[in-house]
Amino acid sequence: MTILDGKTTAQAIKEDIAKEVKQWVSTGRRPPHLTAILVGHDGASETYISHKESDCKQVGITSTIIRFEQTVTQNEILDMIFKINADINIDGIIVQLPMPKHINEQAIIEAIDPDKDVDGFHPVNVGRMVLGLPGFVPATPDGIRELIRHYNIETKGKHCVVLGRSHIVGRPMANLLSQKAYPGDCTVTVCHSSTPNIKELCLEADIIIAALGVPLFLKANMVKWGAVVIDVGITRVPTSTSSGFRLVGDVDFDAVAPKCSFITPVPGGVGPMTRVALLKNTLKAAVLHQK
Amino acid sequence: MTILDGKTTAQAIKEDIAKEVKQWVSTGRRPPHLTAILVGHDGASETYISHKESDCKQVGITSTIIRFEQTVTQNEILDMIFKINADINIDGIIVQLPMPKHINEQAIIEAIDPDKDVDGFHPVNVGRMVLGLPGFVPATPDGIRELIRHYNIETKGKHCVVLGRSHIVGRPMANLLSQKAYPGDCTVTVCHSSTPNIKELCLEADIIIAALGVPLFLKANMVKWGAVVIDVGITRVPTSTSSGFRLVGDVDFDAVAPKCSFITPVPGGVGPMTRVALLKNTLKAAVLHQK
Repeated sequence: MTILDGKTTAQAIKEDIAKEVKQWVSTGRRPPHLTAILVGHDGASETYISHKESDCKQVGITSTIIRFEQTVTQNEILDMIFKINADINIDGIIVQLPMPKHINEQAIIEAIDPDKDVDGFHPVNVGRMVLGLPGFVPATPDGIRELIRHYNIETKGKHCVVLGRSHIVGRPMANLLSQKAYPGDCTVTVCHSSTPNIKELCLEADIIIAALGVPLFLKANMVKWGAVVIDVGITRVPTSTSSGFRLVGDVDFDAVAPKCSFITPVPGGVGPMTRVALLKNTLKAAVLHQK
Repeated sequence: MTILDGKTTAQAIKEDIAKEVKQWVSTGRRPPHLTAILVGHDGASETYISHKESDCKQVGITSTIIRFEQTVTQNEILDMIFKINADINIDGIIVQLPMPKHINEQAIIEAIDPDKDVDGFHPVNVGRMVLGLPGFVPATPDGIRELIRHYNIETKGKHCVVLGRSHIVGRPMANLLSQKAYPGDCTVTVCHSSTPNIKELCLEADIIIAALGVPLFLKANMVKWGAVVIDVGITRVPTSTSSGFRLVGDVDFDAVAPKCSFITPVPGGVGPMTRVALLKNTLKAAVLHQK
């Protein structure tokens, strides 16, 4: 059984990106620039944004955080996005989700210039991904592909069961892994809350991508020997420790791991790969804009 | 066993569309207008285009066919598309595929205004479909949904196996039927040329959508009792009859039908539903443009 070490893999990719950024800047161009929009003061969102900021710094990507109070109107955010779209010194735009209830998230996402949409959430980028055309792929599925690639895991003709159909993980993952490509060319089954026989389907899987957000959902008796298990779940479970919580995945790791050929831990598996995928997309956007 | 009669169902929907168009025109608006671009003189393409033309006429939608010789350049087609995009008297634009080899089909498709893209092939519409947002859904998947709806076939929690991953049938079908909607909320498995155990997977299916384009691929020993079988395949097989060919589906109908709860015939199943879906989309486009 091999642990898919997202932390080390992401670190190696980060070093590659840092080198590329350095070369890029050495040609006289400005460094890639990422702008993040954050509304309100949600604790988790603050953490994510500060991670993204420090990740950028580590590889030489510059970044700005634009903060709005919880009371901001949708039009104020839209006006800001139009301004950033037009700013030739900004390559990538992300909007930290979730937004407050009075903001239409989809309207915000669709206002972003698709060529700066480094989260890959704009319908044009979703369509391009589904059609196998160049564009921005959302960070989590892209990070998972990178991890599969890094460990040379065979995917062609394998049966991949994706648990969850979210727009940011399950659905893109299913579309990508069923394409004639590497990683890909899998037979893909998408399971979700209405699937009555998830256990039986998981037992058929060569590869399981667990992205339901249900802590410890995948048990050992749902996994066949030799399977590859990728755990996307990351739920904060309260503890009496100083942080007040620990991160728990969708997979009952201790019980499942012995049966696997490859498995990701939580934390340290998909999470760091997701973070690095955003950097890759931002560099890609810079190359697209400044060629 | 019930035959899913696409011909009769399509006829009923056509009558509804004709009524709607009549009402629409009675408010003083011009009828919906579809423009088709046809390059060269391929026999099958000529047939499809003339069907589309006569379908339009039957429901009161006006149409134009713009013909180019095989030698046309890509830029000449693009210029025409830009002209049609800007023409407020045209609601829907379709480009009859395949195009000659020297034309980049994707560039042509992406030049079409997404709001006039009644084939639903533009990446924006593909993305919107995948995200469950309003837009144009390609005709064949939309026609299949309509047929399922018309016969009140239960889909929630059912296992649907889609054979084929084409951009125009298999992939959109898989994305639509896995969404939380009716028809939909299925567990969906996508099989294709790299799937080693199609037979076993089909035997698990409550619903099979056969869209491989391989005549008589699906045999009776691949289908469980009570399954719903939708046959998208339509291959011209040479015969000594006056037409010179007969249309053969992907399903070995005579052997498979007795095991099914519902099955589509070929011809007269999915085909007419596909044709009617284009009319629906054109009417929808007209309403979008002239509201």
